[in-house]
Parts: sequence; structure tokens; C-alpha cells
Amino acid sequence: MESLIQDANFVEKVRNSYAHQTFLATLGAILTDVSPGSVEIRLPYKSELTQQHDFLHAGVVAAVLDTACGYAAFSLMPPEAEVLTVEYKINLLAPAKGEELFARAKVVKPGRTIFVCTGEAIMRHGNHEKLVAHMTGTMMSITGRKL
Amino acid sequence: MESLIQDANFVEKVRNSYAHQTFLATLGAILTDVSPGSVEIRLPYKSELTQQHDFLHAGVVAAVLDTACGYAAFSLMPPEAEVLTVEYKINLLAPAKGEELFARAKVVKPGRTIFVCTGEAIMRHGNHEKLVAHMTGTMMSITGRKL
Amino acid sequence: MESLIQDANFVEKVRNSYAHQTFLATLGAILTDVSPGSVEIRLPYKSELTQQHDFLHAGVVAAVLDTACGYAAFSLMPPEAEVLTVEYKINLLAPAKGEELFARAKVVKPGRTIFVCTGEAIMRHGNHEKLVAHMTGTMMSITGRKL
Amino acid sequence: MESLIQDANFVEKVRNSYAHQTFLATLGAILTDVSPGSVEIRLPYKSELTQQHDFLHAGVVAAVLDTACGYAAFSLMPPEAEVLTVEYKINLLAPAKGEELFARAKVVKPGRTIFVCTGEAIMRHGNHEKLVAHMTGTMMSITGRKL
Repeated sequence: MESLIQDANFVEKVRNSYAHQTFLATLGAILTDVSPGSVEIRLPYKSELTQQHDFLHAGVVAAVLDTACGYAAFSLMPPEAEVLTVEYKINLLAPAKGEELFARAKVVKPGRTIFVCTGEAIMRHGNHEKLVAHMTGTMMSITGRKL
Repeated sequence: MESLIQDANFVEKVRNSYAHQTFLATLGAILTDVSPGSVEIRLPYKSELTQQHDFLHAGVVAAVLDTACGYAAFSLMPPEAEVLTVEYKINLLAPAKGEELFARAKVVKPGRTIFVCTGEAIMRHGNHEKLVAHMTGTMMSITGRKL
Repeated sequence: MESLIQDANFVEKVRNSYAHQTFLATLGAILTDVSPGSVEIRLPYKSELTQQHDFLHAGVVAAVLDTACGYAAFSLMPPEAEVLTVEYKINLLAPAKGEELFARAKVVKPGRTIFVCTGEAIMRHGNHEKLVAHMTGTMMSITGRKL
Repeated sequence: MESLIQDANFVEKVRNSYAHQTFLATLGAILTDVSPGSVEIRLPYKSELTQQHDFLHAGVVAAVLDTACGYAAFSLMPPEAEVLTVEYKINLLAPAKGEELFARAKVVKPGRTIFVCTGEAIMRHGNHEKLVAHMTGTMMSITGRKL
């Protein structure tokens, strides 16, 4: 997707925006990769983020995946654009049990206004990795006005 | 949906399960109503839960709505069942700006295995209420085995 | 939603567009109501439209619901706009068994660019009506350019 | 996904079920490949299947993709199981303009009860192929009872 880059400073742009996401800092999520049209976020397990069976809460998995989808789209947007999640769908495939979560998202279809992304959340437990969630999201590029 | 109650202790069952959701305590979300096939959760605004524009993060809104959908379904399940979110879709309709969020979910279609729920997230700001998100979720009743 | 009307000729506009939908004519679907922000389409059962158990095929139900969602949004768009389905999600709740299907859609959140709609498909069998599907769709207003 | 085959006659099983789908015959859709956990369906363009701009109607694209997802899941189910679409989400990425459509679906996560599938619809126009839709669907295995 390199040929689709509209903002040479996309890595810096994404990292700056990420740094202002208080909730992701609260979660302890770390932006580990920003490439043209794809992003990875890593989240170490913390007991504050669990549901009733001590797995990571689905809401945590979704928040991290949604953020990865949003920034994957944002990386391909022009400098003056802001990114907004219109909607997403998530399938929870297995319990998020393990030591750390990797959320990997990519742009499936870039557009002028609408960007469609998919994301996978993988849980690492020792040497074992397991796909725990799949997301499809619709992101919007906003320029010069609000939605 | 009163005629669909399969567990006379559904309120206590839901409240007990909710009390073990560490992540929801971390968020500060409060279970405010449990009725047959419907649930309300209230979340006061906190700066730890925001995105880059100081609104509640979409992931927070989704986590609370998903939980409300899950417990709306759980309220109609038999005593021996556990509830699992298979998938959900959320449309983010407006920024979650304000003092407190109400997540209200209800069962649209109960089943033996599959329960379909919808939920609305409403943000209160002073005397004003605004619909900020809409969810449709598929919940599953698990009895005697894992998925 | 009357106060949201931007095109006084919205009924004629919707009916004209509908008349050019060859596939809906192939299905035998009839546009039965156009109101501000809501639309109803009726589809009589035909054996050509069935799946392996002689119920209406889910694809038929989805096509009619998607069309109802699209025109519900279109009814609130300005005269120069065209409507496009960005995405939808459908839950199939019960077999579409019966004499005729009613697809009823409404706008949940109108916007400048994005309209979010929900729709219900109800199957009539004698005097009995049953909810067979629920849809949430994201529609887009296109003016002066393509997506 | 060969190691996940539970029914040695899965190809025959899928082809037999497909042959009873009257609506797909009405569309003119052809089952072109059945592999363990993946299915391809081909649909030649016909003017009876169009929307107002003479492209294939989104409902047609969705019906073919949903069917491909369902049979991809069915190919991995045990002999006594039936398959049911619980829900799906589709993003429409580009107009379905061209000579023939290929719907390719695969199982992302098999389960005992729930199978999650993704599907892509590709439109061929001369030598050019274009991704026109992306689907994620939740399929259910039904054995010995109805939903």
C-alpha cells in the first residue's frame, strides 16, 4: 500500500495522535508498528482488564482492535484529514487468555471518504499464539468539517 | 418478556456475575437495572476513559453496551447456562461527550442457544440526552460444555 | 422525522429510483410505503425465491431489507444526493416461512454524509406475523462525485 | 483445514444441498469449487439481477457470498449436521460492474457449534479483477434439533 501514501509524515502523525489516547494509556496498550495501511498494537495482560473468568475483557480486545483499524486507515489519509470509526463488527473466537495480546489491522479498501479495515487479535501464551477475535471496521476520513 | 423467565433468581444471578467483572469496576460502570430481557448500566464520565478529544473512548462505550447485551440475554437463560458474546456490531453515532452514559440493552429474539440483542448508548449532558451508539449483538447460551 | 425533510418531492424521488431496480422487479417486491425516514416493502412468496427447505432465501430477505434501509435514508437526503449502501449486518432470527414478507426500515441517525438505519423483516402466514430478520445498515449520501 | 474434515463425503454433501437451492438456480449461480473449509461460487452477469445503474444488485452479491460462507462451514461439519446462517455483515466496496462474479469464502474459526467465515466477492471485467465486497458471517451447526 506504499503507493497510496498521501502524507509523508504518516508514522509521526499516527504516533502523535496515539499519544493523546488516555484510555489506551490506562489499558497499558503500546503502538508497536505503523506501516502504510497497517498497524500493530501490543497489550500486556493486567488483572484490572479482566472479565469474570480472568481473561481479558472482550471490551478491551475490541478497543485495541478498533484503535488499530482506525490508525491503519489514518496512515493512508491526507495530512488535513481526521479519522472516525463509523462502525465495526467483532467476532470473539476464543477466550483472551495469556500473557499479551497483539492487535493487527490492515486496510482492505482505501477510499476518498470511506476506508474498510480488518483486524485480528492474537493472544500469546508462552510459545503458543491463538487467534481470539476478528474485526471488520468502517473508518471515515473527515476534512474541514464534522460528520 | 416475563413469560420467558427460566430462572426465578435471574436478578441475583446477573448481579453476582457482574460483581466479578474486574474491568467494569476499573471503568466505574454501575449495573442500574435488571429486568427480564433488559438491562441498564450507567457509567459516569472519567478522564481516564477518554480518546484524543476528551470524549469517552468508543471502546469504553462498546464494552459497556456489550456487557448490557450479554446480561439482557443472561436474564432469560436457565440457571445452569453461562452466557458468551459470539459477536456484535456497533455504530458510533455521535461523540460520547457529557457527564454520564446509559447503556440500555434488550433481547430482540430469545432462543435455545442463540439470543439476539440490541442496545443503545445515551449520553447525558446537563438536561440533554443524546443517542451516541447503537449495537446489535449475538449472545450464546452455554450449558454443560465449552464453545 | 418530518422536520428533517430536505426534498419536498421525496416520495416521487424514492418511487422513481425504485422503479429502475430490475432485480426487485425480478423478485416481485412492491414498495408499499414511503414516509420521511421510513419505508416499507412487501414481497409475496414465490417458489423461485426459496432455499433448500422451501422458505424464502436469506439473500432475498436481505436484499429487500437493504433496499428498504437505503430508501429510508434516501427519503431524508437533499435533491442532488444519491444513496449508497456502505455496509449492513443482518441477523436471521427465524425461517422466512409464510405468504408474504414485510420489510420495514427507519433512519436511526441521519447525518450529512452517513445515515444509520435499522430494519425488521416480518413474515405473515395467515393471521400470524413473525419477526424473521433484523438489520442495521450504514448508508451514505453522495453528492457531486463518486465514492 | 484438511485435518478438520469430519465427513469424508463433504463434497457430495455440499453439492447435493446446493442443488436444492432454487433461488441460486434462479440467479444462475454455479458452485465451482468445494474444498475443506472453503467454497467458490461463480455468477455470470444477467440484466435481471441489476440495480438502477445496471450493476449487479448488492442483494445478489450478498446472497452468493452468504451461500459460499455457509457451505464453507458446512464442508467441515459432521454428517448429521445442518448449517444455518446466524448473521453476517457485508461491506460493499465497489460497484459490481463486469461480466462475472466470483464469491470465495473460507472458515476463519471452526467450532463445535459456531463457525466464523469470511468471504470476498471479486468481479471480473475482461482481464481485470476487482474486489467488490467483503463479508464476515457466523454459521451454526444444528444437530438433532432446530435452533
